[in-house]
Amino acid sequence: MSYTAPLKDMLFNIEHLARIDQIAQIPGFEDAGLETAQAVLEECGKLNRDVIAPLNWEGDKNPSFHHDGNQVTTTPGFKDAYKQFTEGGWQSLQHPADFGGQGLPKTIGAACGEMLNSANMSFALCPMLTDGAIEALLTAGSDELKATYLEKLISGEWTGTMNLTEPQAGSDLAAVRTRAEPQPDGTYKVFGTKIFITYGEHDMAENIVHLVLARVQGAPEGVKGISLFVVPKFLVKADGSLGERNDVHCVSIEHKMGIKASPTAVLQYGDGMAASIADSTGPGAVGYLVGEENRGLEYMFIMMNAARYAVGVQGISIAERAYQKAVQYARDRVQSRPVDGSLPAAGPIIHHPDVRRMLMTMRAYTEGCRSLASVAAAAYDAAHHHPDAEVRKQNQSFYEFMVPLVKGYSTEMSLEVTSLGVQVHGGMGFIEETGCAQYYRDAKILTIYEGTTAIQANDLVGRKTSRDGGQTAKALADQVAQTEAQLLASGHADALAMAKRLKAAREAYVDVVNFVAGNTKAKPNDVFAGSVPYLMLTGNLMAGWQMGRAMLVALSPEAQAQDAAFMASKVTTARFYADHILSKVPGIRDSIVEGAGSVTELALDAF
Amino acid sequence: MSYTAPLKDMLFNIEHLARIDQIAQIPGFEDAGLETAQAVLEECGKLNRDVIAPLNWEGDKNPSFHHDGNQVTTTPGFKDAYKQFTEGGWQSLQHPADFGGQGLPKTIGAACGEMLNSANMSFALCPMLTDGAIEALLTAGSDELKATYLEKLISGEWTGTMNLTEPQAGSDLAAVRTRAEPQPDGTYKVFGTKIFITYGEHDMAENIVHLVLARVQGAPEGVKGISLFVVPKFLVKADGSLGERNDVHCVSIEHKMGIKASPTAVLQYGDGMAASIADSTGPGAVGYLVGEENRGLEYMFIMMNAARYAVGVQGISIAERAYQKAVQYARDRVQSRPVDGSLPAAGPIIHHPDVRRMLMTMRAYTEGCRSLASVAAAAYDAAHHHPDAEVRKQNQSFYEFMVPLVKGYSTEMSLEVTSLGVQVHGGMGFIEETGCAQYYRDAKILTIYEGTTAIQANDLVGRKTSRDGGQTAKALADQVAQTEAQLLASGHADALAMAKRLKAAREAYVDVVNFVAGNTKAKPNDVFAGSVPYLMLTGNLMAGWQMGRAMLVALSPEAQAQDAAFMASKVTTARFYADHILSKVPGIRDSIVEGAGSVTELALDAF
Repeated sequence: MSYTAPLKDMLFNIEHLARIDQIAQIPGFEDAGLETAQAVLEECGKLNRDVIAPLNWEGDKNPSFHHDGNQVTTTPGFKDAYKQFTEGGWQSLQHPADFGGQGLPKTIGAACGEMLNSANMSFALCPMLTDGAIEALLTAGSDELKATYLEKLISGEWTGTMNLTEPQAGSDLAAVRTRAEPQPDGTYKVFGTKIFITYGEHDMAENIVHLVLARVQGAPEGVKGISLFVVPKFLVKADGSLGERNDVHCVSIEHKMGIKASPTAVLQYGDGMAASIADSTGPGAVGYLVGEENRGLEYMFIMMNAARYAVGVQGISIAERAYQKAVQYARDRVQSRPVDGSLPAAGPIIHHPDVRRMLMTMRAYTEGCRSLASVAAAAYDAAHHHPDAEVRKQNQSFYEFMVPLVKGYSTEMSLEVTSLGVQVHGGMGFIEETGCAQYYRDAKILTIYEGTTAIQANDLVGRKTSRDGGQTAKALADQVAQTEAQLLASGHADALAMAKRLKAAREAYVDVVNFVAGNTKAKPNDVFAGSVPYLMLTGNLMAGWQMGRAMLVALSPEAQAQDAAFMASKVTTARFYADHILSKVPGIRDSIVEGAGSVTELALDAF
Repeated sequence: MSYTAPLKDMLFNIEHLARIDQIAQIPGFEDAGLETAQAVLEECGKLNRDVIAPLNWEGDKNPSFHHDGNQVTTTPGFKDAYKQFTEGGWQSLQHPADFGGQGLPKTIGAACGEMLNSANMSFALCPMLTDGAIEALLTAGSDELKATYLEKLISGEWTGTMNLTEPQAGSDLAAVRTRAEPQPDGTYKVFGTKIFITYGEHDMAENIVHLVLARVQGAPEGVKGISLFVVPKFLVKADGSLGERNDVHCVSIEHKMGIKASPTAVLQYGDGMAASIADSTGPGAVGYLVGEENRGLEYMFIMMNAARYAVGVQGISIAERAYQKAVQYARDRVQSRPVDGSLPAAGPIIHHPDVRRMLMTMRAYTEGCRSLASVAAAAYDAAHHHPDAEVRKQNQSFYEFMVPLVKGYSTEMSLEVTSLGVQVHGGMGFIEETGCAQYYRDAKILTIYEGTTAIQANDLVGRKTSRDGGQTAKALADQVAQTEAQLLASGHADALAMAKRLKAAREAYVDVVNFVAGNTKAKPNDVFAGSVPYLMLTGNLMAGWQMGRAMLVALSPEAQAQDAAFMASKVTTARFYADHILSKVPGIRDSIVEGAGSVTELALDAF
């Protein structure tokens, strides 16, 4: 169950599609060129292969467990591995140098994130949530909050959590009931129950910094009355050392289908249950307001955009891991003679065309989504750091359009890829000790948390498409058309096939964009009946577009001189993507544009 | 986690699509009309709802376990439930009256099988394997073997197993190594290791009758040297009572991702390990040849056709169970206001278009596959019992074409349906206690056992399509075209939409049939690169065809007078199938006919 980072593919994307040379021209990123990327990725690959990946199956067998009322002990080995991870500076990779970070671009950081999640998704969730807390504090925290928390979070000495969900408030955050009572000293006392809190309690760090959505007494109803608070597990004294235990406790952790090593906590705020600050000041968890009252959801959305992108990368990660395992099995398992008679007797199943089809499907989805995520990361870097405001704006618009696709499409495809991974193993795939069943079980959370696929699709329909009348969406179609023209001009057979599929998919996409932009207000049921298919169609096309760009690069004499074998594989994989994945797009168009009626027509009592 | 049998839909299929009235005209089935079907299905539904279904989650929490070297204890409650099942005569339903069976048609029996598997797939596997053993003995057993075993198997007092797989012989049965040594008394001594033996050991019945593939000493290499044996757990004395313990032992059971209550045994034949016949006659399990030497695979294939159909039904079963659970949750869970403003505030999520899309997808797949299975069952009945040889032949040909589709398509769709079932539940879906994760885990075995989807696809390509140059396949296209003509003639808007999608799908299908029939010999890699897509395309079309037939019935005044609400739902569900599922077919055609090259092009060392 080993894992080897796909360095060549990552660096191909970073060099040729994300164009790290252009990012390295942005002030502050001067040292973040291709050589840096290569060096960082190689080191990261070693840590993940040698230290983090070997703990993945262990985490499934021996998950985190809850004991003594409010303690959580993580899987044996996790604590040590986390120490190595933080001591290597991996938590600080993308964060600002002002607070001890390394300030590397997301273009590099995202690839490192992919590796960590391939190695061990349950483990990787802890640093991912810390990243979210850092993002929130950078965005809206006061100087005091920043000074108190950021260095410790960026070093990884403390970890972070996001506390959104309550039993009655899942996708619908308007229903949040956790309350915050203002105190005379400017702090708040927080009361309520939060569920599904990833790494809400654990033993890998000395403090946990909870970012918590709650309502200040007297705040407006709905989403406009929600504020964001920092609630540390241990209060922090003026000198930065840890003080009293705060009144927030983990009352249980969930028994889940996958990512079992990642403790999913129910947190009780202000129950005065165990020895804590409640003994000296009365019940209630001490919280500190982030930014202004009632703007919590706005800040949380900034944080969620980073988290959504990161979850999309998790989809790529688990797909890559499943692919590597399936390839290994297909090379080793001998069964039946190939249909073309190319071997004299039974041979490894990788010789069977259907096994190849499965492996190629896994590979093409994974590479396609990886290339899309890489290009989106580069846009993020330009959007946040480019000196030219117009360039920043364009890149921000591109990035924001891509976030629901990276999240939604990469995670949905990971369900199919991990399922194929099991299928390649035949009966052995269903036996837990084989390991690929874990990837299948782990992956299923990805289409749910940080906003289900439907929530991503709402974002794509509403904020990203209808709000500007489909302008951003259609501008992207024009860019796809340019790639088609370049492919046609190359004249290569594979390029012509790619151009043909891209054209059909793009035309279907434009039809759907017009349908969505034209009907969101007048016929919301018809549009939202097709919102997830629209997301899948668009994700498919945008990843296919990147595969088209990748094919153009790979067909060039310069690239072939660099690494002919790799470039030939890239061309074949892109061609496979075109013929077997992009080819689904026109059918999805029909469902959306012509099929809305039957989605909502059935009488409610007929289900 | 309740289950209610979908009686209305089952009886609709049995009456209108499978045409039970025609089956009841076949000699021997005179009493098996619609009223009988209704009475049997109602009783069966009660047993499954009240007795079998409540044990499903219990089986996941407390699986069968192996102890004392060769014993297996099943989940608490299973033994009692099995007693009720057999005492109610449910094992004997479809088996011949000569041996104590009830001789009901498969058209009714298959619906009962669906219920049992919806209620508890792990439990249902035991009777399913017994059915397989009965089928094998009926097909090829000597009168003596029949006399000794059939009544006990048909009553369910004894259970049966199928022993095919060995560590090196999974899909490739040519690699079977278990050996059988002829004894002077005409029996054989069997030696070897069989794996993945469902209910290979358990405590629910007093004897277990293993059907075992093995090689007689000196038999030819490969598939032509495999024979079939009966190896009972306890030898049977001349008076029918149980004698000595045979030398076959369960050395372990597997730790699986799903169907955990179903014990999957490793059986050791002839290790002389525990007190057994080996003590008196030396090691080796006593076996009795079924039929003739070296024809074992042929007999096993007859048995497997029944089993493959039954596994296809399991796909429908688990999809139905997942659907029912998702509908219940969608009615109960309140979250957000509907996008069309149809409720004044947050309401049950079934009001959200995307939740409706998911539920409709689940429903349409399930109903479509159920209708196909029902029609195939009727063909089986006519093929085996119709007095006219020509009618038998036509029906046999139809049934044989449908078996890989029922198996392959219904199980593949069950992966998507159970995944959607989890998705409807959001975060709660990932928590094991919710129950829908179990369906997702259970379903994954269905595309693997009794021949993976690729093995079904090989059958469809080879025996069912290429062997007769695509004649059977194209004759089916003509039948689809007739349904299109009837839909067009009806003039109803939903019928016109269905006809349009059927036409596009049928034309794509004919292209693919020509491609497959024309290239299987000349370009086997190209054809088998698309074999599973061909299966999925064909299953999709054939189920869609039945949904088209169902729509025609449901639009008729007679049917609407019978049950207007049900017929309206059927029309909507069929329309949904047309626009959202059939619409995928043309894209699959492109993959198969134009995309074969990139499937096998990548260099082996490039994976």
